[in-house]
Amino acid sequence: MAKITKQSENFSKWYTDVILDADLADYGPVKGTMVVKPYGFSLWTNIRDSLNKMIEDSGHDNAYFPLFIPKSFLEKEAKHVEGFAKECAVVTHSKLFSEEGSLKVDPESKLEEEIIVRPTSETIIWHMFKKWITSYRDLPLKVNQWANVVRWEMRTRLFLRTSEFLWQEGHTAHATKEEAMEETLEIVEIYRTLFEDYLAIPTIIGRKSNLERFAGADETFSIETMMRDKKALQAGTSHYLGTNFGSAFDVKFQSKDNKEHPVYATSWGVSTRMVGALIMVHGDDKGLKIPPKIAPIQAVIIPINPKKEKSEEFSNFVTNVEGKLSHLNIRTHIDNLDESPGFKFNKWELKGVPIRVEIGLKEFENMEVTICRRDNSEKHQVQIDKIEEIPIILQNIQDGLFNDAKTFMDDNTCTINSFTDFTETLSNDNQFIKAYWDGSDETELKIKEETKATIRCIVDDVNDDTKKCIYSNKPAKHLVVFAKAY
Amino acid sequence: MAKITKQSENFSKWYTDVILDADLADYGPVKGTMVVKPYGFSLWTNIRDSLNKMIEDSGHDNAYFPLFIPKSFLEKEAKHVEGFAKECAVVTHSKLFSEEGSLKVDPESKLEEEIIVRPTSETIIWHMFKKWITSYRDLPLKVNQWANVVRWEMRTRLFLRTSEFLWQEGHTAHATKEEAMEETLEIVEIYRTLFEDYLAIPTIIGRKSNLERFAGADETFSIETMMRDKKALQAGTSHYLGTNFGSAFDVKFQSKDNKEHPVYATSWGVSTRMVGALIMVHGDDKGLKIPPKIAPIQAVIIPINPKKEKSEEFSNFVTNVEGKLSHLNIRTHIDNLDESPGFKFNKWELKGVPIRVEIGLKEFENMEVTICRRDNSEKHQVQIDKIEEIPIILQNIQDGLFNDAKTFMDDNTCTINSFTDFTETLSNDNQFIKAYWDGSDETELKIKEETKATIRCIVDDVNDDTKKCIYSNKPAKHLVVFAKAY
Repeated sequence: MAKITKQSENFSKWYTDVILDADLADYGPVKGTMVVKPYGFSLWTNIRDSLNKMIEDSGHDNAYFPLFIPKSFLEKEAKHVEGFAKECAVVTHSKLFSEEGSLKVDPESKLEEEIIVRPTSETIIWHMFKKWITSYRDLPLKVNQWANVVRWEMRTRLFLRTSEFLWQEGHTAHATKEEAMEETLEIVEIYRTLFEDYLAIPTIIGRKSNLERFAGADETFSIETMMRDKKALQAGTSHYLGTNFGSAFDVKFQSKDNKEHPVYATSWGVSTRMVGALIMVHGDDKGLKIPPKIAPIQAVIIPINPKKEKSEEFSNFVTNVEGKLSHLNIRTHIDNLDESPGFKFNKWELKGVPIRVEIGLKEFENMEVTICRRDNSEKHQVQIDKIEEIPIILQNIQDGLFNDAKTFMDDNTCTINSFTDFTETLSNDNQFIKAYWDGSDETELKIKEETKATIRCIVDDVNDDTKKCIYSNKPAKHLVVFAKAY
Repeated sequence: MAKITKQSENFSKWYTDVILDADLADYGPVKGTMVVKPYGFSLWTNIRDSLNKMIEDSGHDNAYFPLFIPKSFLEKEAKHVEGFAKECAVVTHSKLFSEEGSLKVDPESKLEEEIIVRPTSETIIWHMFKKWITSYRDLPLKVNQWANVVRWEMRTRLFLRTSEFLWQEGHTAHATKEEAMEETLEIVEIYRTLFEDYLAIPTIIGRKSNLERFAGADETFSIETMMRDKKALQAGTSHYLGTNFGSAFDVKFQSKDNKEHPVYATSWGVSTRMVGALIMVHGDDKGLKIPPKIAPIQAVIIPINPKKEKSEEFSNFVTNVEGKLSHLNIRTHIDNLDESPGFKFNKWELKGVPIRVEIGLKEFENMEVTICRRDNSEKHQVQIDKIEEIPIILQNIQDGLFNDAKTFMDDNTCTINSFTDFTETLSNDNQFIKAYWDGSDETELKIKEETKATIRCIVDDVNDDTKKCIYSNKPAKHLVVFAKAY
C-alpha cells in the first residue's frame, strides 16, 4: 500500500490517492468514465437506500424512463435548449458489421434523428406526463428514478466530474404553483436531512442566482457544502420549474369544473458527487472517515495472535465478538488476512472504518476488546459484557464528525462589507464569504472574473436601503454566499 | 378501464393489453424503448431485491462499470465480435450547439473511436480485471452489477424485447476451470430458486447447443420456461467462458510458486424479461396474477360503505384491519377512491393483487373481513382475531401458482421419437418436445427451418448406440427440448 499524498501538500492529489488506494473507484477506459468498485459501491448503496426511503415515505414512486432522448425533445423548452447545447453523447447509428474480425459502423444504419444519451430527463418525462395527465385526478404525480446520466467531460475528477454518473432524479407535476413550490422545499429538507444526519455534512441552503439556475427552472435551491480546502461543492439541487415544461410539452389538466389548467413542475437530484463531498469533508492524511450510518463496515475486527496460541479458543472468542456486534446490527468484518497488524490498521484507517476492534491475547484473557476510533484515534478497552456501548460510540462518532465539519465551516465563513476586504480575504485563503449583492448578472460576472468566486446561493433578501452591494455599491437586493467552487 | 383482449383470442394482444392497462409499462418515444411505470417498477424492485440478496449472500459484490465501451473492445474476443456485429447504439459525437433555438450536432466533436453503448459488459470488465488481477490473492473475483444495456430492436415487445433493458450481470474470475464451472452452476441454482420459489415459475434447465450459445462462452446454461401459449421463453443464462476473455484481455495470475496461469471466467444475467415471463405464465383473461412473495401489494382492502353509515367507527375498523395486516408484514393498500366496488374489483384483479379484502357493513358488524383470492376466486370470511391466517393463505397462493404452472408445463411436454410425429404435434399446437438429436449444427438448422422449433436446451447426454436422432436417424448425442420460442 503506497503512502497517500498529504492533504496540506496537494489537496487534489490527496483526493485521488484516497479514492484509488481505498478501493472506492477506478478510471474507466473511455475518457471521463469511472468504475465504482465494490467498496465504493457499497458506500453509494447505503447513501442511496437511506435517501430512497425518505423519497418513498414522502409519497414518491420509483419508475424508470428511457436512456435515449430524441434530439428534438431537448429543443422544446427554450432555456433548456441553451443549457444543453453542449457536451452530450450523441448516438447516430444503430448497427455494426464485422469485416475481417474488426467491427465497422454500418453507414446504412444512420438514424433519421440523432438520439441524445440523457443528460437529465425532464423532457422525456414530460413527454410521458402528457400521456398520463388529463384530469385533476392524475395530480399530483410524483415519480423518482435512480439512473445513469451522461454529460461529456474533458477533465475527469472521480465522483465529482465524470461523463457518466449515477443519480436520482425526482420529477413531479402539480395542480398549483403553491403545491409545486411546497414540494420543491420539502425535497430541500429531505436533502438537508440526508446530508446532515447521514453524511454528517453541514449545509448552507439557498436560491441560485439567474446565472447559476438550472436551464428551464424558475427557481433553483441548492445545497452547498464546504470541503476541507474551504472550497464549495454544490451537492444537490431542487428546482421549481413553473409551467415551463408543462407548456413545452403541452400538458394541461381538467379541474373538477371541467376547466383547463396549466401543470406546475419540480425536479430535483443528487448524485455520486455526494461521495466526493463525503471524502473531502471528513478525510484526513490517513484517508477516509466514513460516518457510521452509511459506512459499508462499521467495525472491523483485527485478531492479533501471531503465534496462534490457544488457537481454537481464541478464534471462538473472535467469532463470539463478531456475533455480538452483528446482533447489535453493527456491520462487522473480521480481517483474517495474513498481513501484519500495522498494515491492517493503516488499511482500515485509509478505508475510513469508524471503529477498529483489536483482539489480542490480552483481550482474549481479560474477556474484553480494544476499541480504536477512526475519528479521534482514542483507544479504550470494553468488556465483552459491556459491548452494547459500541452503538453509542458509533453515534458519538457520527455526531462528532458533523460537529467537527460544522465548526470548520463556521470558522471559515465570514461576513464582509467591502470589496477590498473581499479580494484580500480570498487572496489569503479560500473562505465562504457572506456579502450583499445588487442582484445583477453584470456584478456577479465581474466578481467572478476578478476573484474566481461565484455566488453559491442567496441566503436572504434585503428590504433595507442602507445595505449596499459589495461591488457596485448600489442598493443590495440579496445577502449571498460567495466562494470558489468545484 | 377498457376490457382486455381474451388470451384465447389473441395471446399477443392480451399480453400488451395487460401491461398497458395494469400500468406496468408504457412505450417510450424512441422506437424500441420502454417506460417502466411505478407499479411495474415496484414489481421489478421486489424481484431485484430477492435476487440481489442471494447474489450477495453467495459472496458476490456489487459494483458499477461504465455504460460506454470503445468499439475496439468488442473486437478483442473472436466469437464476441461476431456475436455483437449487429444492432448496437453507436455514439459518434460529443457535442451539440444551438442555432436559432434548434440543436445541431457539432461536426468538430466527432470521436476518434466510436463508442458502443454496452450490450453486455464482459469486455469492459475484463479490461478492468487486467488491472486488478495479478496474484492468486486477487482470486476469485466475483462482481455483479445492476445496469441498463442496449441492443437495438426493431420489433418492440414490452419487457420481452426492448432496445434498452434493465438487468443484472455477474462477472467472475477464477484460478481454475473447476472453480469457474462450479460458479456457473451455483448461479444456475440461484436462478432456479428465484424462478421457482419467488416467481412461481417452473423451469427446465440445460446446456445450450453450439448455435445458441453466448458469443464468447464455452458453455451456456439456460433457464427455459413455458408461457401460457406453450411457447418457450429463455429467462436467464449462466455462461462458463473458459479463458476466452482472460486471453483476449491478457489477464494472468501468479500462483504461490510464482508461476503464471490463465484466468477462468463466468458471466450470467437475468433481466426485466422476467416480468414478461411472469405475466405470460400466470396471467388469465382478468389480467395479472402476481405471486405473493414479489407482489407490490399483497392485500388490497376495499371498504364498501356507500351510504357512509357509522362513518367514523367504520373507518377506524378499516384502519385497524390495515394495521393488523401491516403488522404481519403484509404489503397492504386501502383503495379509498370514489369508484364503485365492481370497478375496484376489476382493477385490482387486472393488477394481479393476490388477496382482496372486502369490508362492508356486514363485515364491520361481525368483526370480520371477506377474503377473495385472485388465483381461484374463492371467497370466505375471516374473523378479525383470526387474521394471522392470511399469511398462510398467501403462501398457499404462492404454492398454488407454482403447482398450476408446473402441471401446465408437464401436461404440454411430450417425448417424441419420429420426425413425422414431431411435425404433426407442432402443427396442432405448441409443445415442449423432448427428442434425441445427433448434435450437429446442420440438423439443428434444418429442424428450425422446417418447423420453427429450436433446441431450447440439452437436458441429457447419450452414451447408448440404440438412441437415434429424430431427424437424421444418426446416433444421438443428446436428449434435448425443442420448442417454438420468444
